Amino acid sequence: MLSGVGPIIHSSSPSTLEIIPSALLAIGPQGKINTLVKLEDDSLQDQLDQALNRLPFPPEQITVTHLGPGQFLIPGFVDTHNHAPQYAQRGLGQGMHILDWLSKITFPNEAKFSDPVYARKIYTACVEGFLRQGITTASYYGSVHAEATKILADICLEKGQRAYVGKCNMTRNSPDFYVDKSAGDSLRETRECISHVKSIDPAERLVNYVITPRFAISCDEETLRGLEDIARENEDLAVQTHFNEARQEMEETQRLFPQFAGSEADLYEDFGLLGKRTILAHCCFMDGHELEKIKKLDCGVAHCPISNMTVGGGFMAAPVREFLNRKIKVGLGTDSGGGFSSSMLDSMRQAMIASHAREVLSEGKDKGLSIPEVFYLATLGGATVCCLEDKIGSFEAGKEFDGLVIGTQGHDQGIMTMVEEEDTMETVFEKFIMTGDDRNVIEVYVQGRCVKGQRDDGGHLMK
Amino acid sequence: MLSGVGPIIHSSSPSTLEIIPSALLAIGPQGKINTLVKLEDDSLQDQLDQALNRLPFPPEQITVTHLGPGQFLIPGFVDTHNHAPQYAQRGLGQGMHILDWLSKITFPNEAKFSDPVYARKIYTACVEGFLRQGITTASYYGSVHAEATKILADICLEKGQRAYVGKCNMTRNSPDFYVDKSAGDSLRETRECISHVKSIDPAERLVNYVITPRFAISCDEETLRGLEDIARENEDLAVQTHFNEARQEMEETQRLFPQFAGSEADLYEDFGLLGKRTILAHCCFMDGHELEKIKKLDCGVAHCPISNMTVGGGFMAAPVREFLNRKIKVGLGTDSGGGFSSSMLDSMRQAMIASHAREVLSEGKDKGLSIPEVFYLATLGGATVCCLEDKIGSFEAGKEFDGLVIGTQGHDQGIMTMVEEEDTMETVFEKFIMTGDDRNVIEVYVQGRCVKGQRDDGGHLMK
Repeated sequence: MLSGVGPIIHSSSPSTLEIIPSALLAIGPQGKINTLVKLEDDSLQDQLDQALNRLPFPPEQITVTHLGPGQFLIPGFVDTHNHAPQYAQRGLGQGMHILDWLSKITFPNEAKFSDPVYARKIYTACVEGFLRQGITTASYYGSVHAEATKILADICLEKGQRAYVGKCNMTRNSPDFYVDKSAGDSLRETRECISHVKSIDPAERLVNYVITPRFAISCDEETLRGLEDIARENEDLAVQTHFNEARQEMEETQRLFPQFAGSEADLYEDFGLLGKRTILAHCCFMDGHELEKIKKLDCGVAHCPISNMTVGGGFMAAPVREFLNRKIKVGLGTDSGGGFSSSMLDSMRQAMIASHAREVLSEGKDKGLSIPEVFYLATLGGATVCCLEDKIGSFEAGKEFDGLVIGTQGHDQGIMTMVEEEDTMETVFEKFIMTGDDRNVIEVYVQGRCVKGQRDDGGHLMK
Repeated sequence: MLSGVGPIIHSSSPSTLEIIPSALLAIGPQGKINTLVKLEDDSLQDQLDQALNRLPFPPEQITVTHLGPGQFLIPGFVDTHNHAPQYAQRGLGQGMHILDWLSKITFPNEAKFSDPVYARKIYTACVEGFLRQGITTASYYGSVHAEATKILADICLEKGQRAYVGKCNMTRNSPDFYVDKSAGDSLRETRECISHVKSIDPAERLVNYVITPRFAISCDEETLRGLEDIARENEDLAVQTHFNEARQEMEETQRLFPQFAGSEADLYEDFGLLGKRTILAHCCFMDGHELEKIKKLDCGVAHCPISNMTVGGGFMAAPVREFLNRKIKVGLGTDSGGGFSSSMLDSMRQAMIASHAREVLSEGKDKGLSIPEVFYLATLGGATVCCLEDKIGSFEAGKEFDGLVIGTQGHDQGIMTMVEEEDTMETVFEKFIMTGDDRNVIEVYVQGRCVKGQRDDGGHLMK
């Protein structure tokens, strides 16, 4: 039984940021939050003693840690969309159209993951790099290779990151050196990967498989129908794909599937791949029909502002305000490596920037996003997209403890954030969101286990 | 006499990035570049020996240093526009309209610089923070206070940063607690600051004063006429102001100066403040008349993509392609703290993003900027805007040595960039631009003096 005392900041809705200047957060066995008690400044010690006395644990089992000056606790970040094998190619191919970027930069790079030694090296760096940024949950596209994908799942579990991991299904419109040999092979390897992930984490404690047709362009009908079967047999599995990302991609999809008259929502629905566990990456271009359909089917959107504004041969700003207004589930994706950054702070800032552009393009209709809103997207919103809102995304009794200790002091030691004595908690938080980076992420906890930070003693929380 | 051997990357024009895989760069007394010799890989040692023998220095005075693996040399970054007193408020006030942001966030913050102790503290952090990012030249707006502005100039000189420093002239439309007492006081204090800067750096080795009417809204005619006199008396002085930044600002300027029919170019020209030493920040909204005028008068533009896309109540993307086509001088400004970041790498990336938006808004006419182009803006372009293109911005014999040793290896020690063995120099450079931060800036040299880095032995270059 371990407890932390200090400021806590989390979201309770897209527009509601809760700043608790002083709180006791008590974490029980299996990393579950037992209690969250708000403390008033004027009689802090008395209240703390009372709250500790009320905990359902004997005093000798309780360790209390106080956060340091300038520190506060936030939920871990949820990256709803990224490509693990692109970690080393982040930022390459700026300005290229999406299909050119895939064929010239990405496919040759991802082909290297046929080598398990190489895969282990890059995936280790990727998962460590993400954890360092405070990404406690990630939804990963792997490469086309089953073995590399299993390795990625192993590494997530070993390093203690909550993750969805999926082998990309690609049976056509891919180069000879980087393609599933057949639909049959693609589906068989998918089943192999599912079995592997279930075998290493049978209780689905941290790592889950996610069905990952790369996009309709790279999947023939046999593959999509086969994935429909797999999804039906495994109702607990999530599904992810790219959706209405760029004009060039949408035109090619329409050419390949003329029967859906340009609607990717109709297409994926027909193949039984749209449901509450579906994560649709991008959704830049959405008409009313598609908005209604993904709302009705309760799909989630992975908004990826960084790649939307750099890769794809243009500047795309997804209608996030529209998603929020319609209560469509939406979170943020780094889309690393199409996105040049694997930082959720960069994603939050770019989400604001993209929303300002959207405000101009919509002639004021779609108001820009605020700091509380992009923070929600990066935490509770992302958890909702991943159907994990009952487990993570904010600090409530009964949820698991995925959290970050944020430090804001130490400008002369390399921290870019500059706080001042008179700053309110809200100001300190704003400065962190706007000027912070991984150096502000002092400690990272997943399910109560410390996966980054100086207090790491093998699984203890704030000892 | 000190020499470095390794890869060198610099610009020779907006679209020409020169990547020299191996070069000898010899730095002579006063930090001037004596020689740049390109070496071919196949007989590197022979060529190096020959090049060293040809140097006009006795061998015992020559020290040669080889850059390490994954390292290369680039020119120092030139930040053509930022506000030193806003360093601690970076990122605050997202989404506010420009005039509201000034009155609610910025003026109360800048007012604190009436206290010289406070000014010294923040300006020290600011200059150190900028140098850490590799900003070897900065054009700073100070606060309204003469004493604080002198302190800023002192600190730049002491820390070894090349800088323009100006006290803001603000005689109206400013709050009582943050305004020049009168035009007379404003001009007298400006002259005092000019004398101070000339006295601490009489040879104009590093630090210069820059005449800094904040913008026309905050200056009455007497002040502007007085600054015109000062500019005429001091032809060597640069001038800087905000120019066509945001609709709200432009409308207010037109209301105050109806005689110029909405043209800020006509306004500032009338007050004798436009010339080849003028740095115009922002220039988001430019009609043909204004473009022609600033070209004719050879003014430079400080393009500030970060603040243009966040502060100001909208999303503004300056017509940088148009500036380049018309050969109008243009560089980048962090606009820290209206810009949330003091990193020129962030500015380069945002310049690309803003240009993609501009491409969409101009229906394809203004093509997005490439990596070589934004790198030019951050180095030689900025030098040109500051009329320093004969001194810095690229590595040529006769120029002074302002340069950065960039390291790209060490992902497991916190460097975000991930290079691979097979990466070409061009790929490594792209990865640095897109994923790098101040941790990649291993050493920083200004005029041959090492101002950041482990080889700092009090002024030596690559000993």
